[in-house]
Amino acid sequence: MKKIGKQTIQFEKNPTIISTASIVGPKEANGPLAKYFDKCLEDAMWGEKSWEKAESKIVKETVNTLISKSGIPTNKIEYCFAGDLINQCISSSFGLRELSVPFYGIFGACSTFVESIQLASVFIENGIKYTISCASSHFCSAERQFRFPLELGNQRPPTSQWTVTGCGSLILSSNGDGPHITHITSGKIVDMGIKDANNMGAAMAPAALDTLITHFKDTNRLPSYYDAIITGDLGYIGRDILIELCDKAGYNIKPNYNDCGILIFDKSKQDTHSGGSGCGCIASVFSGYLFEQLKTKKLKKILLVATGALMNSMSSQQGETIPGIAQAVSIEI
Amino acid sequence: MKKIGKQTIQFEKNPTIISTASIVGPKEANGPLAKYFDKCLEDAMWGEKSWEKAESKIVKETVNTLISKSGIPTNKIEYCFAGDLINQCISSSFGLRELSVPFYGIFGACSTFVESIQLASVFIENGIKYTISCASSHFCSAERQFRFPLELGNQRPPTSQWTVTGCGSLILSSNGDGPHITHITSGKIVDMGIKDANNMGAAMAPAALDTLITHFKDTNRLPSYYDAIITGDLGYIGRDILIELCDKAGYNIKPNYNDCGILIFDKSKQDTHSGGSGCGCIASVFSGYLFEQLKTKKLKKILLVATGALMNSMSSQQGETIPGIAQAVSIEI
Repeated sequence: MKKIGKQTIQFEKNPTIISTASIVGPKEANGPLAKYFDKCLEDAMWGEKSWEKAESKIVKETVNTLISKSGIPTNKIEYCFAGDLINQCISSSFGLRELSVPFYGIFGACSTFVESIQLASVFIENGIKYTISCASSHFCSAERQFRFPLELGNQRPPTSQWTVTGCGSLILSSNGDGPHITHITSGKIVDMGIKDANNMGAAMAPAALDTLITHFKDTNRLPSYYDAIITGDLGYIGRDILIELCDKAGYNIKPNYNDCGILIFDKSKQDTHSGGSGCGCIASVFSGYLFEQLKTKKLKKILLVATGALMNSMSSQQGETIPGIAQAVSIEI
Repeated sequence: MKKIGKQTIQFEKNPTIISTASIVGPKEANGPLAKYFDKCLEDAMWGEKSWEKAESKIVKETVNTLISKSGIPTNKIEYCFAGDLINQCISSSFGLRELSVPFYGIFGACSTFVESIQLASVFIENGIKYTISCASSHFCSAERQFRFPLELGNQRPPTSQWTVTGCGSLILSSNGDGPHITHITSGKIVDMGIKDANNMGAAMAPAALDTLITHFKDTNRLPSYYDAIITGDLGYIGRDILIELCDKAGYNIKPNYNDCGILIFDKSKQDTHSGGSGCGCIASVFSGYLFEQLKTKKLKKILLVATGALMNSMSSQQGETIPGIAQAVSIEI
C-alpha cells in the first residue's frame, strides 16, 4: 500500500469483496430496495424479548448468512471488524460472541461500516487472507437510547432521520475477482458547531465535504471519475447541504451523487421525514443493492462515504455540539 | 508483517514507541505510581462543569502533552486510534475533535488501549510514519453510566474494581530506537456465562487465558520468556483466577505476572476493593510506569494484555452475560 496526498492510502493488491449479506426490518422491506436484501423481517423483534436482543440476532444471522454465502469456513476468517450505535457496541459483541474469530470493536457512529472496511482492507493488503466487516442499527433500540422510548409517541421534527433496522456485512479477501478496494480516505473529526440532535444531516455534511474534497485532491480525481458517489446517511437535508458545499468548493457532485438514507425508503409512500440513517443503513444498502450493481457492472466505480455524528444523548443535554466524521472508500470492478 | 500460528502477527519492521504521555486523577496521584505520570490532577473535575467534560479535557491535554514531548509536528501524525468507556466514545471524539488528524474510533472496553496499539502497529509496519494510540476513563463518569451516580452513595461489593481516572497515549513510529512492538495477538470474544457486573475480573479472566495461551502457542514461547506479563485490568480477584487457569493449562505465569489494576493503587492505604479498572488504567500505567521501565531497561521484554468486558448497563438489566475479550502486544527493547 502507498500513502498518497494527505489522508489517502492507495492499495496495490486490491482487497476484494468476495461476499456480502444483509438483513433488514419490516419498514425497509416495504422500501424500493427490498429485493436486494438477503432477508426482510416481518417483525422488528424477531421473536426476541427486547429490541437490543433483536438487533444482536440480526447481526448474528447476517454474519452467519455471509459466511454461508461465501463458502469460506469460519476458521479461515482471520479478523472481524464490527460496530453499532448501541452503548458499548453490544449489538456487535453479543451478536458475534459465538463467532470465534479475532474481534476488533470499532465505533464511528454511522461511519462505522466504512471504517470497518478501511481497517480490514489494510490488513488484507498486508498478507491477511479473509476478514469480516460488519455494522448494524435498529430503529427501536436507537430511538430509546438517543431520543425517546417509542411508547411515548413523541413527534419527530421534519429534519429528523429514521434509523434503519438492518445489518450489512462483507468478506474481504486477498484473492478473487469481485469488486475491489482501490483507495481509502480516512476522515478527520469536523465540528462546525451544530447542536440540533434532530438535524444530523446538517451536523455531518461538513465532515463529508472535508473527506470528499481531500479524496479528490489526494487522488487527483474529479467527481465525474466515479459512476456514483454515495454517502450514508445524510438524508435529504444533508444531501442538499453537501451538494451546495461541494459546489462552493468547486466540485460538482450533483450528476452522480446519492445517499443511502434516500435510496432505502420511498419518499412518497414512507414517511421518514429526512430519510434513513444509522450504521445499518449504508451497511445494508451497500451489502444488498450497491454490491449487486457492482457485480453486474451497472456501476463500475463508486466512492462510498459513510458519515458519523460522534455524540451521545448526554452530550446534547450538556450543551455540546455534534462533531462529525466521514470515512471514504473507493471501490471498482 | 507475518501471520504466525492462529491469531498472532509478527512484525518485521518493529513499530517503535517514541513517546508516551499520561494524566491521572487525584486518587491515582496518591498511589504508588504517581511519580511516573506527566500530570496528576488535584481535582477530578479539572475546572469543567461535568465529569464527562473533565474526561474529554484529560484526553485532549494528554494528547497535547504527548505531541509536545515527542517533538513531532501534529501535521506529520497520520492516524489517531482512540476510545473510551463513555457511551458512543465521546471522551475521545470530544477530546480529540480539534486534533485534525485522521481518526479511528475504537471500542474494546478496557482492552481499548492495546487494541489501539495493535491497529496502529499494523499501519506503521506497512509504511505509515506516525500514529497516536489513546484510551481514557474517569471514575465519576463511569460510575454514573455503568452503576449509580456517586451522589447516591451506594456501597460497593468486595469484588468490585475502581475505575481509574486517567488517560494514556503513545506515538508509534516507523523509525527510532525505543521499545518496539514485536508481536500482536488478537483476541476472540469469550463468554463463560458470568453475569455479575460487580465482578469484572471473573468475567474477563477466561478471555485473558484464551489470548495468553494462544500467544504462547503461536510464538512458541513460555511465560518465562518475558520479564513481565502485565494484564489490565483484572484486579486482585481476576489475577488470582488467571494464575489458576494458566496453571491448569500448564503455564506458570506467577513469577513474572502482575496487573495494572493492582499496580496503580496501594492496597493497604487506598480502599479500592479488588483494584483498579477502566481503559485509562492500563493506558496510564503503561504510558507512565511501564514505558519508563522499558526505556531504562529495567524490563526488556513485556507482554501487555488488556482485557475488556463487552457489556453495557442495559444488557445486565436484560439478564445478559458478560462477554470478555483480551488483546495482547509483545514489546521489547
